[in-house]
Amino acid sequence: MDDLFVHTLQDIYYAENQIVKALPTMIEKAGDPQLKQAFQTHLAETQNQVKRVEEVFRMHGHEPKGVTCPAIDGILKEANEIIGDVEDKEVCDAAMLAAAQAVEHYEITRYGTLIAWAKQLGRNDCANVLHKNLVEEKATDDKLSKLAEANINRKAAA
Amino acid sequence: MDDLFVHTLQDIYYAENQIVKALPTMIEKAGDPQLKQAFQTHLAETQNQVKRVEEVFRMHGHEPKGVTCPAIDGILKEANEIIGDVEDKEVCDAAMLAAAQAVEHYEITRYGTLIAWAKQLGRNDCANVLHKNLVEEKATDDKLSKLAEANINRKAAA
Repeated sequence: MDDLFVHTLQDIYYAENQIVKALPTMIEKAGDPQLKQAFQTHLAETQNQVKRVEEVFRMHGHEPKGVTCPAIDGILKEANEIIGDVEDKEVCDAAMLAAAQAVEHYEITRYGTLIAWAKQLGRNDCANVLHKNLVEEKATDDKLSKLAEANINRKAAA
Repeated sequence: MDDLFVHTLQDIYYAENQIVKALPTMIEKAGDPQLKQAFQTHLAETQNQVKRVEEVFRMHGHEPKGVTCPAIDGILKEANEIIGDVEDKEVCDAAMLAAAQAVEHYEITRYGTLIAWAKQLGRNDCANVLHKNLVEEKATDDKLSKLAEANINRKAAA
């Protein structure tokens, strides 16, 4: 169980680092100013989340290390394919927003699992740090949902 | 926007069909009787969800068709790798449960997006059918969370 916890921590560490690499392109491509701003804010947040995951590694007696995570690679590959295919700027914004929400949901499920496992392993201290990331991911997902419904989807359908 | 909606419908159609293929192995490998039962219930549900997606294709004037979805392929590949690596039966149950929740969250985000887009395109009828799948996916995710906390994680950590 402890091995599985550390493996999943390595998985999310890799995922967060891939997201840090992917966001600048999304910021550049975003046409809607509010979407661009949301991606910029989330890049700064994600950089901080990487540091929190590193903190949990050290609290648990491990050096921070990533393992390839085929799930996040698949989600980001799909995002790139769709973004590359869509010519209309407004529809591209809607597609990028949906892709970002798929990323958020992957992180939400992984942090949920990691927190439950940390508690089970008696590491409430690790669970508390991971919980900060979970709260931010859920808030980002909510913010993106509101942005989609208020603005992005309407423009894309026009 | 309409093209993007149909493409994402093809994406989730492929994903649901891959899940139908993946679940029998998870049912077979599950050691905990409640987890085995949850996977069995979800297989029957998923088969029904495939039919609902087919219904939405036809309502929207398209033949049901899938497109490769690298995201679900990645999530399932990761699940298979971890399940193959874990020797302890109880820890394997915890890993499978977490993998199933990652699948659920992918579906939750995709159905959420599809419903918002269907409404934007004036297809409330399609949104209503897709909403039935979303409700089931969220219920499955909740059921799995409760099972993890009540039983599976404790056994895995023992």
